[in-house]
Amino acid sequence: MLFMNTAAIYHRPESEFAYLYDSETLHLRIRTAKGDVARVHLVSGDPYLVDQWCHETPQPLEKILSTDLFDYWFIAVTAESKRLAYGFTLEGEDGLMAFYGDHGIYPLNEKTLAMPNNYFRMPYFQEVDRFKAPAWVKETVWYQIFPERFANGDPSNDPEGTLPWGSQDPDRQDFFGGDLKGVLDNLDYLEDLGINGLYFCPIFEAGSNHKYDTIDYLKVDPAFGDGALFKELVEACHERGIKVMLDAVFNHIGDTSPQWQDVIENGADSPYADWFYVREFPVTYTEGKDFENAEDLTYDVFAFTPHMPKLNTANPEVQAHLLEIAKFWIGEYDIDAWRLDVANEVDHAFWKKFRQVCDETKEDFYILGEIWHSSQNWLQGDEFHAVMNYAYTDAILGYFVKEDLSLPKMVSEINQQLMLYRDQTNQMQFNVLDSHDTARLLTETNEDKDLMKQVMAFTYIQPGVPCLYYGDEIGMTGANDPDCRKCMVWEEENQDLELLAFTKSLIALRRKEAACLSEGRVYWHAVDQTNGLIWFERHLDEQVIQGIFNTGEETITVEAAGEECFNHLVTKEDQTYHIEPKGFVIINNKS
Amino acid sequence: MLFMNTAAIYHRPESEFAYLYDSETLHLRIRTAKGDVARVHLVSGDPYLVDQWCHETPQPLEKILSTDLFDYWFIAVTAESKRLAYGFTLEGEDGLMAFYGDHGIYPLNEKTLAMPNNYFRMPYFQEVDRFKAPAWVKETVWYQIFPERFANGDPSNDPEGTLPWGSQDPDRQDFFGGDLKGVLDNLDYLEDLGINGLYFCPIFEAGSNHKYDTIDYLKVDPAFGDGALFKELVEACHERGIKVMLDAVFNHIGDTSPQWQDVIENGADSPYADWFYVREFPVTYTEGKDFENAEDLTYDVFAFTPHMPKLNTANPEVQAHLLEIAKFWIGEYDIDAWRLDVANEVDHAFWKKFRQVCDETKEDFYILGEIWHSSQNWLQGDEFHAVMNYAYTDAILGYFVKEDLSLPKMVSEINQQLMLYRDQTNQMQFNVLDSHDTARLLTETNEDKDLMKQVMAFTYIQPGVPCLYYGDEIGMTGANDPDCRKCMVWEEENQDLELLAFTKSLIALRRKEAACLSEGRVYWHAVDQTNGLIWFERHLDEQVIQGIFNTGEETITVEAAGEECFNHLVTKEDQTYHIEPKGFVIINNKS
Repeated sequence: MLFMNTAAIYHRPESEFAYLYDSETLHLRIRTAKGDVARVHLVSGDPYLVDQWCHETPQPLEKILSTDLFDYWFIAVTAESKRLAYGFTLEGEDGLMAFYGDHGIYPLNEKTLAMPNNYFRMPYFQEVDRFKAPAWVKETVWYQIFPERFANGDPSNDPEGTLPWGSQDPDRQDFFGGDLKGVLDNLDYLEDLGINGLYFCPIFEAGSNHKYDTIDYLKVDPAFGDGALFKELVEACHERGIKVMLDAVFNHIGDTSPQWQDVIENGADSPYADWFYVREFPVTYTEGKDFENAEDLTYDVFAFTPHMPKLNTANPEVQAHLLEIAKFWIGEYDIDAWRLDVANEVDHAFWKKFRQVCDETKEDFYILGEIWHSSQNWLQGDEFHAVMNYAYTDAILGYFVKEDLSLPKMVSEINQQLMLYRDQTNQMQFNVLDSHDTARLLTETNEDKDLMKQVMAFTYIQPGVPCLYYGDEIGMTGANDPDCRKCMVWEEENQDLELLAFTKSLIALRRKEAACLSEGRVYWHAVDQTNGLIWFERHLDEQVIQGIFNTGEETITVEAAGEECFNHLVTKEDQTYHIEPKGFVIINNKS
Repeated sequence: MLFMNTAAIYHRPESEFAYLYDSETLHLRIRTAKGDVARVHLVSGDPYLVDQWCHETPQPLEKILSTDLFDYWFIAVTAESKRLAYGFTLEGEDGLMAFYGDHGIYPLNEKTLAMPNNYFRMPYFQEVDRFKAPAWVKETVWYQIFPERFANGDPSNDPEGTLPWGSQDPDRQDFFGGDLKGVLDNLDYLEDLGINGLYFCPIFEAGSNHKYDTIDYLKVDPAFGDGALFKELVEACHERGIKVMLDAVFNHIGDTSPQWQDVIENGADSPYADWFYVREFPVTYTEGKDFENAEDLTYDVFAFTPHMPKLNTANPEVQAHLLEIAKFWIGEYDIDAWRLDVANEVDHAFWKKFRQVCDETKEDFYILGEIWHSSQNWLQGDEFHAVMNYAYTDAILGYFVKEDLSLPKMVSEINQQLMLYRDQTNQMQFNVLDSHDTARLLTETNEDKDLMKQVMAFTYIQPGVPCLYYGDEIGMTGANDPDCRKCMVWEEENQDLELLAFTKSLIALRRKEAACLSEGRVYWHAVDQTNGLIWFERHLDEQVIQGIFNTGEETITVEAAGEECFNHLVTKEDQTYHIEPKGFVIINNKS
């Protein structure tokens, strides 16, 4: 006989397990061991009137998602008094009844239910503390541009030694002349592609081609253009309905910045000495070599590179400087979003101030943090709106491409990631299948374009917003950095126009069905390891979008009702779909 | 055969499970199912050098505390680079080996260990984000004064209709004339008692005797004295080494305040209309009656009382007013701490600003929130230092006094509470056995003074700081509010001087051994339900303080080495103690 695994039951007040979704609706989740609990109910009411409601009929929760270890249950509730005391009753598959509240698990009985202190609390529905998200992000398909490699619109600003465009695969230190004019000149292309958000890798003055070693945060790099040109670019984007996101590298500065050069020169006497985490003066390093380990550091840096001294963001002067920058590019240039590089290594106190400045400067501003691990503490509503969702897309790539995850494990990982964050966050997580920091998707798939298409389609119907890395759409390849940073191919004869058409259609679908694909709940209709069938759905009100994927090696035949809106490697007879390996069909039902 | 209960394993980065204890030391905890895991080890190192350390010998964690469902494991670690990636290896009692990291549970093998993204992260040791606590609190024994009932030092300010001191048991609306002069006049008594912190219930102008319905936060209630007198009182306290804590009632204001009166008069046109959460104008209520339920509310209030309209702390004007108050009493009067009434129902955004103002105004200021339920979100380091620890003392009272908890369940609850918070918090949680909101301890024990002494002794050697409710020390009784608010008894012939002497000794012990009793780790040497023996220890470096309690019905004989420093109902032969029921001995070992 099995007993309920009470040790697996988990809930955490005021967290991703209990949060305001809108000003009147509280979302509650609870976790139980997989397959262990038959039913979960909510007992809840005003904290000051527990005796009035504690014996009333409780409300059922819905089992929404499962991982390899857990089932997750959900309910949305309101409270007329804007206060809620709540607890859960659990009926085990073994028939055992338990009550779970603020003091843990108790046997379910009248006495337990009547103990006011044993209930969890949402003490007051605080609108000011609620996680609020800019609605436009949900409707955005992003396009990531590495400016030095997208297009050279103005050869007059090319740095010395610039190589001819696309003349060779890039080396770490190469320049090819890409710039902002190149982006401006190609807005027709981008608009035609259908994207409506541009995410720029850093554009501020810096020594390298990637510009992550900032010299001056208030200046466009001269090889990319100038402020006036950037302003023109933002305006042109906005005219086309395209949002603009810049990359803020605030964890560290470039070693050729005047601040760090002053520290090198003047040591502890530099007015900038406290801008950094200097361990001993004079700061030293071996040119051309990373520090080997922490014992060798004379100052804190990004990773172990001496060229990126870490900024002391607890220093009010540094804060003032960086917050001025944050405000400057929003206020003067009207950008719509900041992407924050190495965001996890900067302190929370600073990001809370940063968030305030952004909110005060522009309504509906979006803040995206680069964090590769679990990120709950940055996503409470007072720092970021979302993070680069590598953990999510890694699960997809792990199954579809790298084949180091089983199908059930991929589903488990995806569901686990969804349960780490509030729904508001999940709706605007930044889903990247590749970037300037990874190999390109087409290279990862061994240049299998059918597989690439399948992975893209699967990802574009997931919660979160997709981001396309420049050139993926026309079949560019590239291994890890720096190979993934090749020059954009502009000659049509060298572009994969069929892949381009596919990508346009997929983007169009994502944008047309933005509501359901961002807010719709996730439902795994079928996950079959034996034949590789994944039948994944999104449900919003009366709409259901179904994605049916064949990840196996034999053709799969399914019957599905509804309006087919996209497919690949599929033949259809009435409502019957024959899906070849790597094929898929997306069906849109509205009733 | 049993399998490891992997679903019970829990860790949460950047929480009470992973936090900076001092600027260089990270405290890590992990939870496993009780009795399920034989050994836990930590695999950790710099996030950028995972391949260099992932196969090195891991460090063992120590099993520190257990609840009825869980074992908790602990390790303190440092990191030269101030960054840490970490994961746990677990050896089940069944011999199963598992790895637990940021993506959950995996089989333990070389491949798992080499996956950088599967490690939890402390991305950088951020001193600015670290929970910092004022050291003096650890050495404090608090004394709670309900000013209207402690002493009448100045009959000239008695309100109309004041009753003769102690002439009757108090009714809800009674006045007896207690005031600040009464406190000032009795500082010798308090100093002699040995307490070194005074916690005042509200002293600001208000209509009621309890003053929780503030009229003017910037003014001492005229029946209590005035600002000059309060200043004199604070100075006199400080001269005697006594800290002063005031009660800030910021969740709501009194209905006779000018702000609320203006809303009553002018409705939506009042300049104070947005200071409150008005649901409909005009605001109405039935005099002398609480609202019956949320549907009846025309404005949000504390609980359901129309006399305490809830303040809209998201309104910048309200914020500015309350923050000015916070600053005023610290800056002008040099108070040392704020106790925050109904703190859980005020928004986090406001408390974060409040914390900043307090920190900026006075170094080592202490902030104590009134929260009765799990309070992690207020105790992250940027809001409160501690909360009123009812959840903890309720467990003690539940076993010792109310007998609705078994001994193992009490231990489980205590340990569960300790694992909810960082060690810094546990060291300054505010342990109240009774207060103006509860029945008095002596009444709860059915006037059993031996039991009362045992409970006090047990509580005073727990983590956290004790608070004595005025008059408990001389044997005052009182059922729930208002009976617990009787006038202090000052005639020696009506005081229990033996209890007073006991209390003095206990306070002296707590203060003398403040270091070990605040920072020492908790160790349950023996917990025996059959005979009621509790042998509880605190360990700090080479010091061990042992408390041995007989909660059973027969005398218990134990042998214990060390210097006896306090006992009750005990006879001793050499190192052998015969402890009668309700007796205890406290032994202090230093080696």
